[in-house]
Amino acid sequence: MTGLPIDPPPRLLMGPGPVNADPRVLRAMSAQLVGQYDPVMTGYMTETMALYRAVFRTANEATLLVDGTSRAGIEAALVSLLEPGDRVLVPVFGRFGHLLREIAERCGAEVHVREVPWGTVFTARELEEAVAAVRPKLVAIVHGDTSTTLAQPLDELGAICARHGALLYADVTASLGGNPVEVDAWGVDVATAGLQKCLGGPSGSAPVTLSPAAVAVLDGRRSIEAGLRDDRDEEVLPASRIRSNYLDLAMILDYWGERRLNHHTEATTMLYGARECARILLEEGLDAAVDRHRRHGAAMAAGLRGLGLTLFGDQSVRMANVVGVEIPDGVDGEGVRGTFLRDYGIEIGTSFGPLHGRIWRVGTMGHNARRDAVLTTLVALEDVLRRAGVAVPTGGGVAGALGSYTQEAA
Amino acid sequence: MTGLPIDPPPRLLMGPGPVNADPRVLRAMSAQLVGQYDPVMTGYMTETMALYRAVFRTANEATLLVDGTSRAGIEAALVSLLEPGDRVLVPVFGRFGHLLREIAERCGAEVHVREVPWGTVFTARELEEAVAAVRPKLVAIVHGDTSTTLAQPLDELGAICARHGALLYADVTASLGGNPVEVDAWGVDVATAGLQKCLGGPSGSAPVTLSPAAVAVLDGRRSIEAGLRDDRDEEVLPASRIRSNYLDLAMILDYWGERRLNHHTEATTMLYGARECARILLEEGLDAAVDRHRRHGAAMAAGLRGLGLTLFGDQSVRMANVVGVEIPDGVDGEGVRGTFLRDYGIEIGTSFGPLHGRIWRVGTMGHNARRDAVLTTLVALEDVLRRAGVAVPTGGGVAGALGSYTQEAA
Repeated sequence: MTGLPIDPPPRLLMGPGPVNADPRVLRAMSAQLVGQYDPVMTGYMTETMALYRAVFRTANEATLLVDGTSRAGIEAALVSLLEPGDRVLVPVFGRFGHLLREIAERCGAEVHVREVPWGTVFTARELEEAVAAVRPKLVAIVHGDTSTTLAQPLDELGAICARHGALLYADVTASLGGNPVEVDAWGVDVATAGLQKCLGGPSGSAPVTLSPAAVAVLDGRRSIEAGLRDDRDEEVLPASRIRSNYLDLAMILDYWGERRLNHHTEATTMLYGARECARILLEEGLDAAVDRHRRHGAAMAAGLRGLGLTLFGDQSVRMANVVGVEIPDGVDGEGVRGTFLRDYGIEIGTSFGPLHGRIWRVGTMGHNARRDAVLTTLVALEDVLRRAGVAVPTGGGVAGALGSYTQEAA
Repeated sequence: MTGLPIDPPPRLLMGPGPVNADPRVLRAMSAQLVGQYDPVMTGYMTETMALYRAVFRTANEATLLVDGTSRAGIEAALVSLLEPGDRVLVPVFGRFGHLLREIAERCGAEVHVREVPWGTVFTARELEEAVAAVRPKLVAIVHGDTSTTLAQPLDELGAICARHGALLYADVTASLGGNPVEVDAWGVDVATAGLQKCLGGPSGSAPVTLSPAAVAVLDGRRSIEAGLRDDRDEEVLPASRIRSNYLDLAMILDYWGERRLNHHTEATTMLYGARECARILLEEGLDAAVDRHRRHGAAMAAGLRGLGLTLFGDQSVRMANVVGVEIPDGVDGEGVRGTFLRDYGIEIGTSFGPLHGRIWRVGTMGHNARRDAVLTTLVALEDVLRRAGVAVPTGGGVAGALGSYTQEAA
C-alpha cells in the first residue's frame, strides 16, 4: 500500500535541465538537521551568502537563498520590487521572458513587452531604445533562455538602465556557472537562479542577490508582521505593502541578515545542497567551470552536426550548456525521445510554444558537462536516429566532427 | 575559501520543530534525480498524492505538494482561494493565527479577526457566532499552534462553515501525524502542512489537499500563462487572476493532475523526502503514530512536572507533540537553552510575542517521539536546571513522575 522505496533507474539527463545532481551535493544533503538558530546553522547560512557572492561575482551584502525552485526566486524578486502600477519593461526572446511578463502582470505592474523572434536576441541599441521609450522602474530580462538555447548579452544593459534610472533584474537560472555571469561588472541589480542547471544540484533552492539600490526599494516598502515580531509594532501603509509574505525579500533579508528575525522555517537540507553546489563550483574555479561548459558544449554541438543535424538559432549567442537541433523531416520527435530514454536511459529535451515538435534540446551542464556523457549521448543518438530511418552520414560522422576531443582530458 | 564540508555536530532537536529527520527520509533524498516527465517521476508523483490522501484522511483527488516550506503551502491556499475584497474570518489563538491574518491581508482580503488569550482556544459556540456575524467566504484557522502548544478542536467547525456557506481552511502543519487530523470527517476544505514536525522530514515541501468545493473556486479563477502553454490561449479577466504564479494552485494542480502541464521544475529531492515521510507514517499506521505521540508527549509533560516546572496553557486541549513550561522565576531562559545546547547538544524552544521570556517549549515529535529521547532530555534538563540554581524536587522527581514509562517498550 505504501509502495516501494525510492530507487530510480539510472538516467543520464542530457536535456535543458534538471540534470543529474553531483553525488557530492546529494551526500551533503544527507547530513542530519540542526536547529534553525543553532550557531552551526547560522554559520552555514553566513558561509552560503559568501559563497554565492563569489558565484554571482558580486559584493552585494544581500545575497541569500529563497526556499523554493528557481521560479520562486523570480517571483520573490518581482513581487518584492514591483508595486501595482509600476512600469516594467520585459524584453522577450523565448518562453521564460513570457514568464517574467506574466509574473509582473500578476504583481499589478504596467508591463511593456518587446519581442524578437525565437532564435534571435536583442541588440544593445534595441534595448536602449525600448528603455528610453518606456522609462520603466525595472527592466526584467532572462539571461539564458533554455527554450531557444540563446543567451541575451547583458554587458551593456546595466549601463543603459543606469542612464535611464531603471533597475535591472536578470534571471540567470540557466546560465549561472556555465556561462559568464558578472552581476557587478554588468550592473545587474537583482539576479536569481536555481540549482538544477550548471550548478549541478536538485531544484528547490533559489540563490538571489540584490544590489544596495534594490535593497533601498525593499526598505521603502518594508513591512511588518504585526504582532508576530517582538521588536517592531509600527503599522505600514497597505498601498506599498509587498503582496506576498512567503516571497517578501525584505523579510527574508531580515532573516538572513544580522537581525535574524524569524520568518519561514529554513529548508535546511536544500541549504546544505545549495552550499555544496557553490563549493564544488568555486573549488573548480568559476572560469574553469565556464571553460569546461564551453568545451563540452561545443563538442556536443559539433557531434550533432556530424550526425547530419541542423542547429537551431543564432549560434553566435548560443548558451554554452544547451543546444537545439532541428528534428529531421518525417521523424517523430517524441517517439525518438521515448526510445532514447527506454533503450539507453538518456533524456534529451522536447520544446515549447513555436518550437514544439520542431527541435530537440540537448544539454551539457553541471555534473554532466563531461566527455563520457557527451560521447555516450552522441553514440546512442546515432543508433536511435538510424533506427528511426534518418540518413546519418557515414565515414566521418561523429568521430570526424569531434576531431581531437576524444583524445583530450575528460 | 570554500569552507569545510557539511558535517554538523550531533543534535537532539526537542523544540517545537524542526526536529531531527528520520534517517530513512534522508536516505530516500540521496537518490539520484530523474527527469520531471520521466514515467518513473510521474509514477512517484501519483504515489505521493495517494500517500498524502491517506495521511490527511481524505478522498480529495486534489492532494499534492507545494515546493516550499509549510508557509508556502499556507500562502498558496490563501492566495489561490481569496480574491481582493473577499471576507475572511481568522480566529486567532496564537502566533500562527496572526500569520494567517497577515497573509490574507496581503491577498487583499477583508479580514475579520477574533482573538482569545494565548493559552486558550475557542468554543464551538464562539466560532459559530463569529461565522454567523461575519458571513465569510473562508474561515482560516490554525489547528495546532506551536506558539501556545494548543490545538483548536475542529471537529464541529466544518459543519458550522457548511451551514453558513463558508469554506474551511486549516493549517495542520504542527499537528498532522501526531494528533488526530480528519480532513474529510471534519469537513475541512483545504489543509496544508509541512514535513518538519510529526512527519519527521526536513522543511521544504508542503503537502496540500483541496476538496472539490475548493477546486471549484480555483476553476472559477483559472488563469493561463498566455503563450507559455501550448493547449490554451483564451484570455482571463485580470480581476480574478490569482496574484501569484508560483503559488497558483490551479496551475500546480494542472501540473500534478492528468494533464501534467508544465509549471515549476519539481523539487525532486524534496518530493523523494515527502514521499518517504508518508510511507514511514503509514507503515506504522496513523492511529499508532498518533498514539505514540500521545504516550511520549504525556511522559515528557509528566517528567517536566516532576522537575517542579509548571505547564503552560489549557492542558485539556494541548497538542500531543509539544508542551510549554514556565521558566522559573529568576532563571535566564536563554542562558539555560544555551547551556543545554552546548553541554548536551539538545535543543528546546524559546517563545514569541506575549510568551517571550516566559516559557520554554519542549517537543516530542516525529522521529524524536521515542523513549530514549524523552529520558535523555529530562535527565539533562534536570542537571542544567540544578546548575542554574533551580530547586529541583528530590526523592521522586522525574523517575517518580514517569512511573512505569521507563519500563515500557520504547
